[in-house]
Amino acid sequence: MSHELISHLKEGHAVHQFFLVRQAESRTTKSGQPFLSLVLGDKSGSITARVWSDVVAKCPGPFAPGDEVGVQGQVESFKGELQLNVQYIISVETLRALDKDLSEYDPELLCQATPYDRQELWQELWQLAESQIRPPLRQLVLKVLDRYRDDFLVCPAARLYHHPYLGGLLEHTWFVARHALASLSIYADLNRDLVLAGAILHDLGKIKELANPPAPERTVPGHLLGHIVLGRDMVRSEARGLEFSDPILLLQLEHIILSHHGAVEFGSPILPKTREALLVYFLDDLDAKLKMMSQHLESDSGEGDFTSYNRVLQRNLYKGAPPAANDREPDQEA
Amino acid sequence: MSHELISHLKEGHAVHQFFLVRQAESRTTKSGQPFLSLVLGDKSGSITARVWSDVVAKCPGPFAPGDEVGVQGQVESFKGELQLNVQYIISVETLRALDKDLSEYDPELLCQATPYDRQELWQELWQLAESQIRPPLRQLVLKVLDRYRDDFLVCPAARLYHHPYLGGLLEHTWFVARHALASLSIYADLNRDLVLAGAILHDLGKIKELANPPAPERTVPGHLLGHIVLGRDMVRSEARGLEFSDPILLLQLEHIILSHHGAVEFGSPILPKTREALLVYFLDDLDAKLKMMSQHLESDSGEGDFTSYNRVLQRNLYKGAPPAANDREPDQEA
Amino acid sequence: MSHELISHLKEGHAVHQFFLVRQAESRTTKSGQPFLSLVLGDKSGSITARVWSDVVAKCPGPFAPGDEVGVQGQVESFKGELQLNVQYIISVETLRALDKDLSEYDPELLCQATPYDRQELWQELWQLAESQIRPPLRQLVLKVLDRYRDDFLVCPAARLYHHPYLGGLLEHTWFVARHALASLSIYADLNRDLVLAGAILHDLGKIKELANPPAPERTVPGHLLGHIVLGRDMVRSEARGLEFSDPILLLQLEHIILSHHGAVEFGSPILPKTREALLVYFLDDLDAKLKMMSQHLESDSGEGDFTSYNRVLQRNLYKGAPPAANDREPDQEA
Amino acid sequence: MSHELISHLKEGHAVHQFFLVRQAESRTTKSGQPFLSLVLGDKSGSITARVWSDVVAKCPGPFAPGDEVGVQGQVESFKGELQLNVQYIISVETLRALDKDLSEYDPELLCQATPYDRQELWQELWQLAESQIRPPLRQLVLKVLDRYRDDFLVCPAARLYHHPYLGGLLEHTWFVARHALASLSIYADLNRDLVLAGAILHDLGKIKELANPPAPERTVPGHLLGHIVLGRDMVRSEARGLEFSDPILLLQLEHIILSHHGAVEFGSPILPKTREALLVYFLDDLDAKLKMMSQHLESDSGEGDFTSYNRVLQRNLYKGAPPAANDREPDQEA
Amino acid sequence: MSHELISHLKEGHAVHQFFLVRQAESRTTKSGQPFLSLVLGDKSGSITARVWSDVVAKCPGPFAPGDEVGVQGQVESFKGELQLNVQYIISVETLRALDKDLSEYDPELLCQATPYDRQELWQELWQLAESQIRPPLRQLVLKVLDRYRDDFLVCPAARLYHHPYLGGLLEHTWFVARHALASLSIYADLNRDLVLAGAILHDLGKIKELANPPAPERTVPGHLLGHIVLGRDMVRSEARGLEFSDPILLLQLEHIILSHHGAVEFGSPILPKTREALLVYFLDDLDAKLKMMSQHLESDSGEGDFTSYNRVLQRNLYKGAPPAANDREPDQEA
Amino acid sequence: MSHELISHLKEGHAVHQFFLVRQAESRTTKSGQPFLSLVLGDKSGSITARVWSDVVAKCPGPFAPGDEVGVQGQVESFKGELQLNVQYIISVETLRALDKDLSEYDPELLCQATPYDRQELWQELWQLAESQIRPPLRQLVLKVLDRYRDDFLVCPAARLYHHPYLGGLLEHTWFVARHALASLSIYADLNRDLVLAGAILHDLGKIKELANPPAPERTVPGHLLGHIVLGRDMVRSEARGLEFSDPILLLQLEHIILSHHGAVEFGSPILPKTREALLVYFLDDLDAKLKMMSQHLESDSGEGDFTSYNRVLQRNLYKGAPPAANDREPDQEA
Repeated sequence: MSHELISHLKEGHAVHQFFLVRQAESRTTKSGQPFLSLVLGDKSGSITARVWSDVVAKCPGPFAPGDEVGVQGQVESFKGELQLNVQYIISVETLRALDKDLSEYDPELLCQATPYDRQELWQELWQLAESQIRPPLRQLVLKVLDRYRDDFLVCPAARLYHHPYLGGLLEHTWFVARHALASLSIYADLNRDLVLAGAILHDLGKIKELANPPAPERTVPGHLLGHIVLGRDMVRSEARGLEFSDPILLLQLEHIILSHHGAVEFGSPILPKTREALLVYFLDDLDAKLKMMSQHLESDSGEGDFTSYNRVLQRNLYKGAPPAANDREPDQEA
Repeated sequence: MSHELISHLKEGHAVHQFFLVRQAESRTTKSGQPFLSLVLGDKSGSITARVWSDVVAKCPGPFAPGDEVGVQGQVESFKGELQLNVQYIISVETLRALDKDLSEYDPELLCQATPYDRQELWQELWQLAESQIRPPLRQLVLKVLDRYRDDFLVCPAARLYHHPYLGGLLEHTWFVARHALASLSIYADLNRDLVLAGAILHDLGKIKELANPPAPERTVPGHLLGHIVLGRDMVRSEARGLEFSDPILLLQLEHIILSHHGAVEFGSPILPKTREALLVYFLDDLDAKLKMMSQHLESDSGEGDFTSYNRVLQRNLYKGAPPAANDREPDQEA
Repeated sequence: MSHELISHLKEGHAVHQFFLVRQAESRTTKSGQPFLSLVLGDKSGSITARVWSDVVAKCPGPFAPGDEVGVQGQVESFKGELQLNVQYIISVETLRALDKDLSEYDPELLCQATPYDRQELWQELWQLAESQIRPPLRQLVLKVLDRYRDDFLVCPAARLYHHPYLGGLLEHTWFVARHALASLSIYADLNRDLVLAGAILHDLGKIKELANPPAPERTVPGHLLGHIVLGRDMVRSEARGLEFSDPILLLQLEHIILSHHGAVEFGSPILPKTREALLVYFLDDLDAKLKMMSQHLESDSGEGDFTSYNRVLQRNLYKGAPPAANDREPDQEA
Repeated sequence: MSHELISHLKEGHAVHQFFLVRQAESRTTKSGQPFLSLVLGDKSGSITARVWSDVVAKCPGPFAPGDEVGVQGQVESFKGELQLNVQYIISVETLRALDKDLSEYDPELLCQATPYDRQELWQELWQLAESQIRPPLRQLVLKVLDRYRDDFLVCPAARLYHHPYLGGLLEHTWFVARHALASLSIYADLNRDLVLAGAILHDLGKIKELANPPAPERTVPGHLLGHIVLGRDMVRSEARGLEFSDPILLLQLEHIILSHHGAVEFGSPILPKTREALLVYFLDDLDAKLKMMSQHLESDSGEGDFTSYNRVLQRNLYKGAPPAANDREPDQEA
Repeated sequence: MSHELISHLKEGHAVHQFFLVRQAESRTTKSGQPFLSLVLGDKSGSITARVWSDVVAKCPGPFAPGDEVGVQGQVESFKGELQLNVQYIISVETLRALDKDLSEYDPELLCQATPYDRQELWQELWQLAESQIRPPLRQLVLKVLDRYRDDFLVCPAARLYHHPYLGGLLEHTWFVARHALASLSIYADLNRDLVLAGAILHDLGKIKELANPPAPERTVPGHLLGHIVLGRDMVRSEARGLEFSDPILLLQLEHIILSHHGAVEFGSPILPKTREALLVYFLDDLDAKLKMMSQHLESDSGEGDFTSYNRVLQRNLYKGAPPAANDREPDQEA
Repeated sequence: MSHELISHLKEGHAVHQFFLVRQAESRTTKSGQPFLSLVLGDKSGSITARVWSDVVAKCPGPFAPGDEVGVQGQVESFKGELQLNVQYIISVETLRALDKDLSEYDPELLCQATPYDRQELWQELWQLAESQIRPPLRQLVLKVLDRYRDDFLVCPAARLYHHPYLGGLLEHTWFVARHALASLSIYADLNRDLVLAGAILHDLGKIKELANPPAPERTVPGHLLGHIVLGRDMVRSEARGLEFSDPILLLQLEHIILSHHGAVEFGSPILPKTREALLVYFLDDLDAKLKMMSQHLESDSGEGDFTSYNRVLQRNLYKGAPPAANDREPDQEA
């Protein structure tokens, strides 16, 4: 039985498939019976689910946010909202331990992810580093990418604000790196290797700051040291392993990572003191803000020319721009 | 007698050429004799000049900052600094009124200017607008460029902070516009016409905010309305003349100009509410800051790896980056 | 059947009259039946209303915030709150299209408005402009007032914070203008015409920033340009029509409007650079803040000497001031 | 020999009159001889003075800023500046101790003062309090005014920024109080007595914060407690003496004084929580800023339409406003 | 029947004891019957209570937050939460007026309090003042402590943020005073008497700012003058009573109190201008922040290494620190 | 010939001793002759020196700030200032290379240093670490102290603001560590080892941030990474060498170092998230500010009760506190 997206579920549907647990809470009915209130998700959205006490009794728990679960149940309507009445629930981990058939299980279906093909992004990022950066930074960047390949493919770019989904870090890095390459065609006297290495590695520390990519949460080192310092440590450690030949060049790359929030009030312990560091800071910030705008525009389902107020951006956004239609050839229209 | 650059003058030289008056002050010697203390400049630097009372008496003044003057004199040394002892001084304006020979007079020599060929920048900017923007914004942008061509060729981008010299606005606009074109290859779903038109026109108001390009000062409308509002008025007025067909598109272009300082605390009456406006804001700010860094690095003559403290950027800059040598082919070195 | 104010409705009343739709939402009952949940308002307050599916079926919708509607129904009590069970609902617009009798319809009853007589305020404001301002600003101000008379009579002074009701802009302008006149008796060396014209026109742009006065929302130009720039455009356009004779005087008036928020962080692209502009900024800000205090004091129904915390003013207000009793003659009491 | 104003002195004049010592420094000539370098002032300006060692030897010193001195000397020119070569100098205090003739001595001539007649301002302020405030605040205000009459007549309103001269506090208070009366005609529902008492007493603490009115400096209590707390103490102490009958009313008056800087970042320990306090805060701030603008405009002797940059106001001011000519009758010109 | 702590109540329990009313609201059932919804508290927590209309009718009300009440009722479960069904309720005040037996009534049980023995803290604080401060400040401090002994024993240190419970002010003062004594062993050249007196008296004004210690709320003087000014007044008034012999010393103590928030943006009208004042400011702020951290850590019942986000501290706190085990002797372990 | 302190030099003295070059500039006399203008210093102050062209010719230069030099010359008076007319000058480095007698050379005399005996401070700091910290942090701290012993003995605590002299870092660390020990007696539930290790190591990075202790300047890593990150790296690297057994404990120590500026706007990439980190931040900040106050008070030679305005502290300081006389026994005076 194939996965039916949550956004397609309707009252009366029977469900027999996998979900990601987003929230889990133990409650008690008015009559004093305990039950589980869950929020289940997949890549298309989320739905409230109830596991009444008789079902709880026969299902091996507990269930926590981030768990992937197999569920049997019925879609009902409650106060005008769809709700899933669970008849059986079991974690994928338990199924795996029991050696059950998981052929239908596809983790990619269960949580939000970048809309791009991650393998392709990865190839292009690698290609960019390999063809555009000169030694010795080329070796360093490729070594880092190689070591953290698996993490890059799943890590989000942030917990909440921008690209908060599987592969978000890769998508964000890919945009910043390609933009850096484009910017270098305009500001050609900047150190090309430093700019590109900085663009690719600036957010590397997210990999150690954030655990559990499908439902990202901060790690202890992420809380106590922060991704800026963590990422710079990862680069430095790799450079030590490579016996990196140019300590001043390495120092400048570390500076780009440490200063890439641009201002101390945004958590950089140091201000950008080179033009290369300034450029990486701007391109990172720009990509994050453009993405936040896109996300907010997409999430807005209301009427009117403007979105609801976005608290992070502290503004409403204009929705009414005419379609860009950039595919038309400008020259033909004059 | 051809112009000798101030940076080449030495003690004992006789001088007979044109300068720009940068500062002018009337003073009195200890013995009570009035004299003129001037600072004279050309594109290479500046020199203090003294006009003693007997010379003042026979030269038709007064002389004010911004005046171009012909000067005869002798280079002397005073307290270790070169100084020009003026034997005759007369303004170019007076020479012109007297129908004197001005064949040696070349205003381009007398003040700082963009290092780029301004005619070429202008051609490229025009070409970019003509080939990359589609109607109806194409007509609007070309109409504006056409009307303000002469101003663009001389106007600085700012009075003090970045590109504060002849053609500075043109150089800044050219960088921002080309960078916008490069950015659109990455963020292809933005409205290309709006981004390019915004990039080209965002600082248009500088033309009415700043008078006297060789020694720029704010005009009354520049002080009382500001270049952001002035520039948007100029675009709007041109659009009215063209009977611009798409009022919503025009409104978005006005929005880009009004919001291009990015935040109210930097003087934009409105925050960028479209991704197009956000991009133009970032590219403008980035070009200004990169230029300020370049200017500060170039002006630094001290020893050490870091420049002196820059009060506007609030930091010292790193001077020791290894030469970029970007001309080498990266592929050949692996 | 005459209008019964919402504040006077009681359980069991039958209702047959007009309301303003303040909120409208489509919902579904537990049994899966769609219904409409509305909030209906008049000048005295608001009440929740339910339109069950059978009624929805026979009434021509849809209904949106801002709509004026005729309603038949019954007042009931639900969880201790009064609620209107709607038996029939139809928009005034549809009634008008059907040429129905609207003799009972009085839009003034349906939404909040200034407690002052708006016609009187208007007369006094006009009178003040006509008698106190000298040419050429007198003609300009009167021309603007004349053109926007109808708007002034309905436009609120703000969407939420102060005077957010019909005629709010007029009330606010009337207070600021009269206060300006009083201040000029103390600061007699200020330019009287500029101060009075600025006081009357400073918030003119609200008329184009806010649409739909009974339930004000920002227009597209309001969002993208802001009321400060819009208002200054309106004055400038009127001056152009009049072939206003004194461009420097006009520039100063535009400056007062552009700078009337007093600081860039409050959205003025320019700081007040004349004493006239400074005075208008203070009087505007003072009237808005005094009104916000009055509104908060009036809305407070709690016990104790202080109001609840006001988030905009960031403080609690003191309620316990002894009655002013200013009507008593001070001299008689010594 | 009558006083010749410093602004009227010319090279060669012989001087025999009184001055105020503004600065005093002991120095040594190149040849090792000690001398006194003074800055002497009167109400029209200031002049540098030299007291060479032979004169120092025969004159009873020392001389400190704030001292009033009798001087005999000669006006000379040094490096284009006038300078006073002192032949004899003696303090007024010493003259008085020696019982010398001081008939020419007029302290009013020696330092800057309000341009208004201070006795008249005082009478009007008293009159306003007596006629407009009702008991019991009337008695309190008059008691305070009576006790501090002599201080009001000399105290400046601030050390540096606004009204920094003899009678400055009186002038400032007079403007704020009269403006408050005018504002009450617009905001008639405010507590008239509190507003007027607050307006008159808000800056009372300046009297204890600033010592030595001709050359004001902060006292120890001024530094350690501040004028806001000091002023409120003075009012409270007077009220205790009067056995003031209404403690809540007194508390509100104290609140106006403590909160009259309007925001904690400007040194008020508490925000205005009544409309009366808000009004007094605005009127105080407005008068101070208008005065700072006037002072800066008057002090500007440069050319151009704008003044030099004012660091406190953080802006240039516009000088080009057309003369107000408010004396013309507006009605006659239509 | 002895008091059962709220944290120990279970479904089905019968209750017959005293509580503190924390919240009180009048509501109506769906069927239109009025009832009281209360939140009742004791030192261990709080519980919702319902008083249905028949019970309301026979119980003498009204009941307001802060009231202490005797209650008879039954613990029930509603939507998974415990709730108290009240069968009778009467205020302690009424019981007392009726001369009823209050032997079971123990106010200490009814609200949160410092975990320390308050009598002991008081003794130690007195002892510290008596033994460590020299005259004349010793007498002043002891006089103040003596007068406000009863208040110190109950007053909280703040309404919400830190030590918001009975005796909180005493606990906070005791920590700051002992820490000051410890700091003086390091910074021995500071004025010991001033530091200790300042540490003990810095928050004295809380006693007049906050009324009703079990459910603290701001008084009118607390709102209009603030605890900083109130506390300094209390000290000053006591000093006047003692005819305090050293006015400069007193001024410095007043300065410590007025400046102890350290910065004007935190409500001090004056900055610390002595090292003694700076030290007291730091020790006060440190104790408050350490306590807020402890409170937040204790209140956190979630899993994971970090607490939930604390809005006042603007951070998550780390919970995973290994137990300090400071009791072990460090020397024995090397 | 023994060293005569600069503060003791008088006109006419012959000088033959060592100095530290603080500033060095090449200039030209009016007659075109080059000369050297130096500022020479020792621990007591500084003096201007002139090296005329004939002397320059015979002395082996060049001379740069930070150089130690032997000087023969004559003290003269110029414009009332003492000045040293140099007859011979040679660097200590050259003297050493030439194997000259340097028995009189004592670098301690040549620059400012902590007034404490640095060897003693060092012993006490070591003793504190050894006796008070338990394993495994004890070993780590002692290892770090051991490795950087020589640096601690000379490094200043800051370039300009506090303890800007030889041994300043040691003095500052000693105060913070002892204060931490004292604070732990009050806040006994904090992790003692972490607090003490953090207090001792918090500013360790200064050693790599600042080069050339007698005339400190920032290093390249100091500029590009900052002392916060550098110091944490040094600790981490030492822990790696020791195979430190408790990674979570190490992480918390790193957290204390990274967060010890307390707020991101002061350059900490992370906020203190443990009470231990909060305490170290407070004690560091307090010691720095108390020292800045002491330095400013000591440097103030003016009259009056208050110092001149201190720009970093943004206030004047009170000088008039009565002598503490803490040596007297408090008990004897009651």
